[in-house]
Order: sequence, then structure tokens, then C-alpha cells
Amino acid sequence: MSESNRAVVLLSGGLDSATCLAIARDEGFEPHTISFRYGQRHEYELDRAEKMARQFGSASHRVVDIDLGQFGGSALTDRSIGVPKPASIDEISDSIPVTYVPARNTVFLSLALAFAETIGARDIFIGVNALDYSGYPDCRPEFITAYQAMANLATKASVEQDRPLRIHTPLIDWTKGQIIERGLALGVDYSLTLSCYDPGPGGVPCRRCDACLLRAKGFAENDLSDPALADG
Amino acid sequence: MSESNRAVVLLSGGLDSATCLAIARDEGFEPHTISFRYGQRHEYELDRAEKMARQFGSASHRVVDIDLGQFGGSALTDRSIGVPKPASIDEISDSIPVTYVPARNTVFLSLALAFAETIGARDIFIGVNALDYSGYPDCRPEFITAYQAMANLATKASVEQDRPLRIHTPLIDWTKGQIIERGLALGVDYSLTLSCYDPGPGGVPCRRCDACLLRAKGFAENDLSDPALADG
Repeated sequence: MSESNRAVVLLSGGLDSATCLAIARDEGFEPHTISFRYGQRHEYELDRAEKMARQFGSASHRVVDIDLGQFGGSALTDRSIGVPKPASIDEISDSIPVTYVPARNTVFLSLALAFAETIGARDIFIGVNALDYSGYPDCRPEFITAYQAMANLATKASVEQDRPLRIHTPLIDWTKGQIIERGLALGVDYSLTLSCYDPGPGGVPCRRCDACLLRAKGFAENDLSDPALADG
Repeated sequence: MSESNRAVVLLSGGLDSATCLAIARDEGFEPHTISFRYGQRHEYELDRAEKMARQFGSASHRVVDIDLGQFGGSALTDRSIGVPKPASIDEISDSIPVTYVPARNTVFLSLALAFAETIGARDIFIGVNALDYSGYPDCRPEFITAYQAMANLATKASVEQDRPLRIHTPLIDWTKGQIIERGLALGVDYSLTLSCYDPGPGGVPCRRCDACLLRAKGFAENDLSDPALADG
């Protein structure tokens, strides 16, 4: 088991995690993808995550139920809190926005850690990005470094095995344009991905939330239109 | 909120967490208790946890559903794996036993962290013990220290507030006898607690698993019989 090339890949259905999955495969890992039904505003992204898992030949794909909406405190899990729609990308708030979900990546990584241990995986991929992002604290490199240190003290696999657990964050310091460029080179079909925080019926992106604006910037940086948009 | 005396207390229904709750109250915190329906072998302990929450006047009590059984790998979530019944306390395995649940405390603390953030609590109590215990890696002080460091980088509350999050582990280096002595002084009714990994119908302790043997040692160290046993 210690020589396993299995990796757990967190998959949201968005652009970043799809690219992360492609990178994990390209690096020779056997990806086992995990998504979360956490009380998010919409489940379209779970459908997209499954499609991405299929496209990139995940060895297994799993949707874990964990209701973070029960704690509240986020526009992404509480429909009574509106998703901000800034007038332009320059108007995106400098402070942590209401779309922040309390401890979300901590919870997701912890469940990924449990899953990794049971399948003998010592590698976890997460598509966090700390450049073209919404300012969430649990997307920053210092958080990931601390998480990895903790995880290496947390499990039986860590205590009994020589090979440390690694949290891979290949996108962490890339621009959105660089992420898309790399993904296209690896064959990611971005028409299948959904980044929007607040899509309309059928999963149609709102084009106005932070996630839509950052995504548009990424395609513009590549002189491309977004294949997920009807007029893209 | 930064001056809140609210504390999240993890409550399993066992002896240690009941004592931990009593200590949190004694230290002046307003306890908000959290238990987990995680696919454990039995739910008697959840009933006991609720009773303890009521006895110690939890400001709120919450049971969170997270199915760790879906990952497997533990006798506590997979009934096809037997719970070890050593011949005596001296025969308890030195290695991490099959009752270890992958990443359990990491997952539980992460959900407690999400809950704490939404209620403005900066203190989390967990009744881990690294002396009279089953050797689980996520009960050791080095794990807790690393978890706290990670948590202080993980949340909006940590980034935006001056007061750090603290993980309190008052029992971590006590013997089982010392835990019981302290709990009795604080009025814990141990007849309500259930420590057994593998109770019979109605929640009757098996008296033979690691947890039962360690509990019996604790009462013996206090020259007491266990009030939770029919002949106690």
C-alpha cells in the first residue's frame, strides 16, 4: 500500500478542480474523486463533477453528504443571504465575502483524509487558488501547509508508514488564465464545468458573481470565449 | 462576539467527554454540545450524550450526521470486523487497534470548528486522553497542537479576529482514575455514561473491550464500583 499511486482528488464541478484532476492524472496518479453534497445552493455542480470524473477516468467517484447548511453563516448554504454581484471584477470585495462557508475546506479535506486512509492513498489533490480567488482563508498556502502537518499526525497510516501524506495544490499560485491554459493542454472540456455561485434554472451561469467574473477573466486572458456559455 | 464565553464541547456519551463538559462549565464557559451520528455500531451513546447535555445545561445540543462507515476500515463502523476482547487490561494491544476510525477526530473537530465559527465561539473542548487510551493517533497532544495551529489559519474568524481559537484538552494526561475523581467532584453522574465499544441490547456494557477495561480500572483506582453496571 505504501507504494500506491492512488490519489484522492476533491472535485466540485468547477473549473479549478477539473484542471486539478487532469493534472493528477497527468502526473501518473490513479484518481479517486470525491464531491460533497454540503447544502450548497444548487446541485448542478455535482452533476458536472460526475461528468468530469467520467471524462478523466476516475477509478472511483463518491459523493459524500455533509450538511454544512445546518450551521448557517454563508450565502452558499443559506438562500436568505444574497450572493454579491459586483459591477465589475475590480469591484470584488477585498474582505472575505459572504460566500465564505465556515471551515469548508477543513471539513472537506478531513473527509478526503478519511477516504484516503481507507484506500491506501497518500496523496490528496485540491484545486485551491490564492491569486484569482474570493479571499477565502482556507485557500491560502499557509493553511494547506498547516493542514498537511496536522494530517501527518492524525492517522494510523501516518504513524505506521514511512511515506508522508502530501496535499497537492498545483493551481495555488496560478492566474485563472494559466489554469485554463494548462487544462486545455491536458484536454479538459470546460463546457462541462460550472463555476457560478448562483446559477439559474438548468445551471445557467449568472455571469455576475465573483466566480463568474474570475472565470471570464481567465478565458479573456487566453483570448478565448467560454465554451460553457451559450454565446461563448 | 470576540468576548464570547461560548464553547463547543464534543460529547460522545462516554465517561471522558462527560467529564470534559463538566470542566468546561466549571471554567465558566457556556457549553454548546455536539455529537456525531457517524455510523457507529450503536446509538445508545447518542442518547447518553443528550442526557449529559441536559444534566449540565448545554445552551444547545446538536447531533451531526456524517457517515464515516461509508469509508470502512474500522470495527466501530463495520460490524463484520470484531471488537477485540482482551483477556485483561494488560493484554490490550500496543499497536493501534481495529477500533481506530480513520481520521475520526480530524473530521469531528472540523465540524466543531464550523459550528464554533457560526456561533462566535473561540473555544473547543474535546475529552481526548493519551494515557489510559486505545493508542489512537488523533488523541495525542502533538495532534491537538497541530490541529489548533491549522484551525487558526482556516477560518474567517481566525483571520479577522485577534483572539485565537483554543482546543482545550483538560484530560489529555490524566489517568482514568484521575478523570473520574475530577468528574465526581464536579457532580458528573457516571451512571448515565456509556463507554463500551460493543454493548448488548439496551446498551449493556460488554465489560471486555478496551473501553470497558479502562473504565473499570478508573473506578478501581478510586475504590469505587461503576454506577453504570447493574451490580456496580
